[in-house]
Amino acid sequence: MVSTGRRGLTPVSFTRVEVDDPFWATRIETNRVVTIPIAYQHSEETGRIDAWKLDWREGREPVPHPYWDSDVAKWIEAAAYSLAAHPEPELERRVDSVVDMIAAAQQPDGYLNTYFTVVAPERRWANLGMWHELYCAGHLIEAALAYHEATGKRKLLDVVCRYADHIDSVFGPGKRDGCPGHQEIELALVKLYRATGEQRYRELAGFFLDQRGSRPSFFQREMETLDPEASRLNRHFFGEGEGFHTEYCQDHVPVREQSDVVGHAVRAMYMYCAMADLAAETDDAALLRACKRLWKSVCEKRMYVTGGIGPSSHNEGFTDDYDLPNASAYAETCAAIGLVFWNHRLLQLERDGRYADAMERALYNGAVSGVSLDGERFFYVNPLESRGDAHRQPWFACSCCPPNIARLVASFGQYVYSESRSEAWVHLYVQGRGELDLDGRKVVIEQKTGYPWKEKVAIAVRPQRAAEFTLALRIPGWCSGATAKLDGRSLRLAPISRKGYARIRRRWNPGDTVELTLPMPVERVEANPAVAADAGRVALQRGPLVYCLEEVDNGRNLNDLILPRNAKLGAKFERNLLGGVTVISGRGRRADRSAWKGALYRFAGSRTKPVTVKAVPYCVWENRRPGEMLVWIREA
Amino acid sequence: MVSTGRRGLTPVSFTRVEVDDPFWATRIETNRVVTIPIAYQHSEETGRIDAWKLDWREGREPVPHPYWDSDVAKWIEAAAYSLAAHPEPELERRVDSVVDMIAAAQQPDGYLNTYFTVVAPERRWANLGMWHELYCAGHLIEAALAYHEATGKRKLLDVVCRYADHIDSVFGPGKRDGCPGHQEIELALVKLYRATGEQRYRELAGFFLDQRGSRPSFFQREMETLDPEASRLNRHFFGEGEGFHTEYCQDHVPVREQSDVVGHAVRAMYMYCAMADLAAETDDAALLRACKRLWKSVCEKRMYVTGGIGPSSHNEGFTDDYDLPNASAYAETCAAIGLVFWNHRLLQLERDGRYADAMERALYNGAVSGVSLDGERFFYVNPLESRGDAHRQPWFACSCCPPNIARLVASFGQYVYSESRSEAWVHLYVQGRGELDLDGRKVVIEQKTGYPWKEKVAIAVRPQRAAEFTLALRIPGWCSGATAKLDGRSLRLAPISRKGYARIRRRWNPGDTVELTLPMPVERVEANPAVAADAGRVALQRGPLVYCLEEVDNGRNLNDLILPRNAKLGAKFERNLLGGVTVISGRGRRADRSAWKGALYRFAGSRTKPVTVKAVPYCVWENRRPGEMLVWIREA
Repeated sequence: MVSTGRRGLTPVSFTRVEVDDPFWATRIETNRVVTIPIAYQHSEETGRIDAWKLDWREGREPVPHPYWDSDVAKWIEAAAYSLAAHPEPELERRVDSVVDMIAAAQQPDGYLNTYFTVVAPERRWANLGMWHELYCAGHLIEAALAYHEATGKRKLLDVVCRYADHIDSVFGPGKRDGCPGHQEIELALVKLYRATGEQRYRELAGFFLDQRGSRPSFFQREMETLDPEASRLNRHFFGEGEGFHTEYCQDHVPVREQSDVVGHAVRAMYMYCAMADLAAETDDAALLRACKRLWKSVCEKRMYVTGGIGPSSHNEGFTDDYDLPNASAYAETCAAIGLVFWNHRLLQLERDGRYADAMERALYNGAVSGVSLDGERFFYVNPLESRGDAHRQPWFACSCCPPNIARLVASFGQYVYSESRSEAWVHLYVQGRGELDLDGRKVVIEQKTGYPWKEKVAIAVRPQRAAEFTLALRIPGWCSGATAKLDGRSLRLAPISRKGYARIRRRWNPGDTVELTLPMPVERVEANPAVAADAGRVALQRGPLVYCLEEVDNGRNLNDLILPRNAKLGAKFERNLLGGVTVISGRGRRADRSAWKGALYRFAGSRTKPVTVKAVPYCVWENRRPGEMLVWIREA
Repeated sequence: MVSTGRRGLTPVSFTRVEVDDPFWATRIETNRVVTIPIAYQHSEETGRIDAWKLDWREGREPVPHPYWDSDVAKWIEAAAYSLAAHPEPELERRVDSVVDMIAAAQQPDGYLNTYFTVVAPERRWANLGMWHELYCAGHLIEAALAYHEATGKRKLLDVVCRYADHIDSVFGPGKRDGCPGHQEIELALVKLYRATGEQRYRELAGFFLDQRGSRPSFFQREMETLDPEASRLNRHFFGEGEGFHTEYCQDHVPVREQSDVVGHAVRAMYMYCAMADLAAETDDAALLRACKRLWKSVCEKRMYVTGGIGPSSHNEGFTDDYDLPNASAYAETCAAIGLVFWNHRLLQLERDGRYADAMERALYNGAVSGVSLDGERFFYVNPLESRGDAHRQPWFACSCCPPNIARLVASFGQYVYSESRSEAWVHLYVQGRGELDLDGRKVVIEQKTGYPWKEKVAIAVRPQRAAEFTLALRIPGWCSGATAKLDGRSLRLAPISRKGYARIRRRWNPGDTVELTLPMPVERVEANPAVAADAGRVALQRGPLVYCLEEVDNGRNLNDLILPRNAKLGAKFERNLLGGVTVISGRGRRADRSAWKGALYRFAGSRTKPVTVKAVPYCVWENRRPGEMLVWIREA
């Protein structure tokens, strides 16, 4: 079980949260019946499952790939979350059989990696910068913890503990130097420490983190030990000379000194998660300060309005402040998921709604956009504008995103509530229930709501017996004019609200109910003037959802559409559209191309004609006829 | 002397045109006293002059470069034009001494190239795709023709004729296959044919042109003969596999079948010049049709409003229709110059003002922007938006642009007039005079005008004796409401105007005067809606000049400025600014950044404050304090 850090709130485990809302419940069900099975199927078809048999021989196809183990691990993790909410003996048997294969693949010394056992055994731990050996280990640990928490079964947990012990016997002070090119094991080791109480795991996580930014860099020293072929490959990925090993994998300065988010976006997010985790466990104020500086860099200067991050395909990551091109946005699904993980951690530590706002922004927009409504196709890249050539794919050669979105959706429940000794926190409004434990006192919280489509949320509080504690209800950053009633009587929110949460401290009786109204007018979002790509444009948002235009609703050439500043915009729920969504529509204008007759330039006098503009939530785009898409709409 | 082709008009030679206007005369003088001397100085300091001594030996620095000969040739050409307008014994002696060196460097068989004589003699004609051997030959021919025309001196002309004879002995039907990777010799050989009457030169130009697009491609066949090192280099520049040798150097289909402008922009323009030249000489209708298709591709789909062409630095050239990014615009100075050359040729052939419009657009904007007002610094790349990091440079390692702009400015006079047996054509309005020859009848045309700043042009026609002929006066495409008076009496233009020219056929007496008024209101230019980069933006234009905003006049963050649709814009001549320019100003609005307090997004309600917006001609930007620049201004 994931226990709390020494500081902060504890997220209420997915095992104690039920989700039954109009937005997530269907996705979770589709994830269970479609995505998780096809993730297994693709893993099997591509050889990722059989690789665990360790019977690959030179010359055979396919050759196992150094990243494969992580895909299977994430599938196990997703399956675990799903099993907790919805037991399925057949799925559990399938996981058990994969666990058996993994356990059988573990080497006598505890080592556990398919590629470096059968394909390149002589390279074990030889190229941490390039290959994802420690990254795969991290995902195996996360899988084991989730499966143990969901089912109580220890087999995989025991396996990964032995593996972690082996890694700990190789790396650390007085042992080998080193850290992973792609962060992940750090956060996994803190999780493992929390579940087992074994301090060595936490210390090893700290060791890996603290290797970064040392000079001469570990990665540079490592590269000098490589043969020319491997060295060439490393240079290709990390860049030559000065650029090598630095910003791409956040090795440019020691972690406590980092301020600007740089490099590969997923690596950055996973690392910041571990930094927040260790800050929570060790009261390391410098780590927390670094997280807060980095958060401002990400969320106030380098984040898309969808919660997507990392604009550039070049490094799958970050560039400059306010550089947020829309059509070429990379915004990898895994990066938005990483942003959720990190903000979730900072929220527990800081009890500050801005982290919940960022988490919700990514969850409801740029992360969940990564999977189609039918659960069968995936975006690796999530642009904010498309000329019609962006389509979700069934799988990828480097297929990190599909199982990542599967584990996110399956574990969604864990983002809804937190608990502490005397506080019950509601971060997200999601119909369903959570069973909280306030220092031994059970408190059930039941939400009835049509969120994110509807403004009203009824929150019933059911302590086992009457008790005094604080119920902290998030007032989302996007919402102004929230109102509440407590047991039918109006409750003034302003005096009890701080940092984005209304904190109601009182003696709660079973069945006490708070009715929250979160007004959801259609809002026009504008970007900071420093974001050149969005100048003269607005995005539409309603509640937590960012909207977009699609060609199927608005015709081709979406950049010909202009939204007059005074155009009235209305919202309407359409039951039969895209599984049931609220659409936004209003009167806009469209440039009249027919008047151009082939000219490239002309003196102004542009004719426009009135049109109806219709927007749908960004997260459900590209689920109908393929075509153009646009988030930032021209305004005039 | 450049004579006419068999079809079309004949440009009036630079030797017979005087320019004395407020825009060009100063530039021509600065070109003479600053640019031409420093082009020589840089050529000398970098070893380009001494290379002709052929005394380079292995191990010495600098190593002559395969492109160097062309830089010196373009310098001679520029000097020649300048000498015709402004004799300078010292400059002429300097050219003569370089000519002596060049003549002495000619090999017994006529061959003439420094690099392939001293550095890589074994590679002569071995790698036409990559090295610029034939390109350099073409520039030497152009230099020789200009110097002969300016001074009557034949020495260099004789040298290049021997060289052309040598090239003709190597290449052609029944001899070697081949054509240059970088076109240039084709147009030079047609010029040489026109000056000498030697048909072989024209035929060789046609041979080189017709090699392109053959399959298997000449370049591919050539590459197979190269050693691995040279082959690798070729692949690096031309791209691997399918892409190799095709679009980059316009070798994708035979020239008569080409329709879309592709690849390296300068190569394309120089090739199209030769196609137009041969179409004129041989009545090759298919070549002319191809030129007209390509013209539509360039000028109606792929040209910046400045006349800059070739948006991408990747191939120094073209991409897709309407792909005209502003900040990353490559728009090489040489490419805009090439656009002038080509449109000038099509104008003679077609007598159609749209070619004059394109020629004028490039001449007054995106070509002349290539040189600073003080004549000392040069743009290779001409973006339409700058964050403040674009600055003209004194010289370049690959320094094609500086001598190219020098020869363009020095030869400007040749673009003003054309003559035919019974027609006198005025393409550009430029104070000064031209001496035309209409089938033996001398006609002097004198212009008095403050163009491009002022609307009025007085054109005095002075035939030697009264004679009937047509005076064709261009009514620029940017101008509506042009009016004219003939000898003081109003002249209705509509009935006599066709394809952008008012054609006044009458008996002209010496001193007859046409007074033309070309209204120059400030115009807002909009781009075709298909140009995504310009959506919601306008450029400002007055007369032929496109304007831009500079930071020095408008402060930082030019994309924060908004020009309301109804903002009145005024024009005013400022004598002491940038050598005397008309500036445009009006009331705009500026986004109020101070209200943002670090937020990245917010719901609309953007505050703006009124500001004065001031624009200067694009061609003179980056001549004051360095900073941001913007052509396409947000409109609201």
